[in-house]
Amino acid sequence: MLTEITGGVCAPQGFTANGVHCGIRKNRTKRDLSLIVSSVRCSAAAVYTQNLVKGAPLLVTREHLADGYARAIVCNSGNANTCNADGVEIARGMAQTVAEHTGIDASDVVVASTGVIGQPLSLDPIRSGMSDLVAGLGDHSDYAAEGIMTTDTAKKEIAFRFTVGGKECRIGGIAKGSGMIHPNMATMLVFLTTDAAISPAMLSQALREDVKTSFNMVSVDGDTSTNDMVTVLASGLAGNEEITGPGEAYDAFCRALSAVTVYLCRRIAADGEGATRLITCRLCGAADDITARVLAKSVICSSLVKAAMFGADANWGRVLCALGYSGVALDVTRIDVAFSSKEGRIEVCRDGAGIAFSEEDAKRILTPDEVVIEVDCKAGAGSAEAWGCDLTYEYVKINGDYRT
Amino acid sequence: MLTEITGGVCAPQGFTANGVHCGIRKNRTKRDLSLIVSSVRCSAAAVYTQNLVKGAPLLVTREHLADGYARAIVCNSGNANTCNADGVEIARGMAQTVAEHTGIDASDVVVASTGVIGQPLSLDPIRSGMSDLVAGLGDHSDYAAEGIMTTDTAKKEIAFRFTVGGKECRIGGIAKGSGMIHPNMATMLVFLTTDAAISPAMLSQALREDVKTSFNMVSVDGDTSTNDMVTVLASGLAGNEEITGPGEAYDAFCRALSAVTVYLCRRIAADGEGATRLITCRLCGAADDITARVLAKSVICSSLVKAAMFGADANWGRVLCALGYSGVALDVTRIDVAFSSKEGRIEVCRDGAGIAFSEEDAKRILTPDEVVIEVDCKAGAGSAEAWGCDLTYEYVKINGDYRT
Repeated sequence: MLTEITGGVCAPQGFTANGVHCGIRKNRTKRDLSLIVSSVRCSAAAVYTQNLVKGAPLLVTREHLADGYARAIVCNSGNANTCNADGVEIARGMAQTVAEHTGIDASDVVVASTGVIGQPLSLDPIRSGMSDLVAGLGDHSDYAAEGIMTTDTAKKEIAFRFTVGGKECRIGGIAKGSGMIHPNMATMLVFLTTDAAISPAMLSQALREDVKTSFNMVSVDGDTSTNDMVTVLASGLAGNEEITGPGEAYDAFCRALSAVTVYLCRRIAADGEGATRLITCRLCGAADDITARVLAKSVICSSLVKAAMFGADANWGRVLCALGYSGVALDVTRIDVAFSSKEGRIEVCRDGAGIAFSEEDAKRILTPDEVVIEVDCKAGAGSAEAWGCDLTYEYVKINGDYRT
Repeated sequence: MLTEITGGVCAPQGFTANGVHCGIRKNRTKRDLSLIVSSVRCSAAAVYTQNLVKGAPLLVTREHLADGYARAIVCNSGNANTCNADGVEIARGMAQTVAEHTGIDASDVVVASTGVIGQPLSLDPIRSGMSDLVAGLGDHSDYAAEGIMTTDTAKKEIAFRFTVGGKECRIGGIAKGSGMIHPNMATMLVFLTTDAAISPAMLSQALREDVKTSFNMVSVDGDTSTNDMVTVLASGLAGNEEITGPGEAYDAFCRALSAVTVYLCRRIAADGEGATRLITCRLCGAADDITARVLAKSVICSSLVKAAMFGADANWGRVLCALGYSGVALDVTRIDVAFSSKEGRIEVCRDGAGIAFSEEDAKRILTPDEVVIEVDCKAGAGSAEAWGCDLTYEYVKINGDYRT
């Protein structure tokens, strides 16, 4: 039983947060430094980008989470601290600065940065802004969410209440970015908190399993960032019996985790750079779930499908094309395709061939800001959902001169 | 010794061509049906899209080339004849219509179609236009090149003279499309002719080897078409001793073939939908050539690199990012990156980290309509070139409503 609640990352017991403008960004009205702190040491887990080029903060965070525990997350926007000769040193400096102002061990601080790649990051604004940042810690998940935004146009924040072993628990999260796929504004970052008691090992397993069907199923432009990271801290203050293995309690936690991550995935895709529409590909009938994920993701990654969605054009041939080159085995003569939204549903392709349909109705169905591409491979029980967005003039504009 | 000559696919001895408007397209000024005919039976070879969704003409062409010989190529634009229930029947009908008007065996006719996927193609306009098409056969490579164009803005045609075993030979080609990657205007199509005498087996081997470093290294939008096809016909009328195995003569032929295909690749990428720039990634120092191809292609396929090139923005971090997620092993701390063009050359990244450079000079160097991204992995002797184009507003516009 899940109930949405307010408070974001501060909803779970033990967590406070804040975000300030420290001067990394020229725009003085934009918060560019965020901090999330727990009153107790937390089980902690994280997943990182698969890109061989990794932001320095990720390397430091991986060291700090090696023991499975952490107490704070610090993150700046405006600079990715990636491909800088002194990157690791700077990232360590960020953790040290937090330690000096909070008394938290530097090795219990998760460090993240997001912004342009390859531009030196100075510690000065971070050092000068840290006092205010720490002094202002409180029920300010929204400030923290704002402090990590780059080209985001909307804050991404959510929290749920759920029950584990009779105890009421909470889980919350904030995110920035438009997918796993934003090299230069580097990155999707997601910070999750919960007061459920769960061992580091099970927390890590839960997160690793979850991303396969959540963040790994989001795409905006196919470019896997160098700084992607999803981190979760579990304070255990809900008082449930610690989850140390599989079972009912673990499953309840995973369901709550999934509710948060899927919500954030949809918000990230909907806020993809320049996007006017959230595109969901709901695929069923694949040989298995893994095959279904490859196929669904191939559809929402296709530049031509994305451009067609921008034009509200029921160009189902591009959907078949994207399924055809996805790399997995597929009987294309059995594929059915339909488009749906709050405006209705329309079938456009049956058994791999076009069927007569009203272009007018299709246009109407594809016009809302959330549309679904439904694919049935009629080959098995595998299913998946992938989330993307349309490809627009604005995307080109944003990325034609991101640095200038 | 290669010399560029005029005549396109009609430059080699034995070949005539033509293109007419038969009515598949509404625009009466646009030729939409092309024919290339040889006076003798030719050794013939083709390579086809890897997409599991394949255009019906490809299936028929594969049947017709099973014996390694052909005499004619017929191609319409405006309709891909793909994902149509009666597609194969229609494609056979096109070959039959050519046979009736030329006396050529239908099984010696290569059939191709390009245009929208999933819209029924009628034989009527093709039947009615065939008399004029055949009657007008002559030194009209340019008409044939025009007849296969879709969103192309420029004709793509080239021919060279070369020598095999003391005999003067010729090879020519025409192409349409903007890469292997155009689902809905389905396709890149390339038709090559030569009067060199070469066995079907060696011709096929030469083509299969060539595409690895030519057409397979072009990308416009990452979408692999359902109708891509490269076909070559060799009349043998040059009178050289037939090439039936490896050796000097075979190598001379491969060099001439490569000169034609690489020229067409560059023209196709430069004419990518909405493109304002030809982007070449010249990569060296990779472990081997295959690794180099994967890396170079990953760079020119990156939406963010392409958008940066549109903005003439020296955003080298996106180049490193694309190398990092390409999937091949790589020591990112050794990578050097430079940009070059007729305006000069500028180094922007050394050993995986940024170096100081003049943004002004970089902007000037990235502004011409042909720019090169130079990457040195400093790890081995592998090298490759890949060709792409920038991502522009116009690309989004063209593909936002291709069908309407």
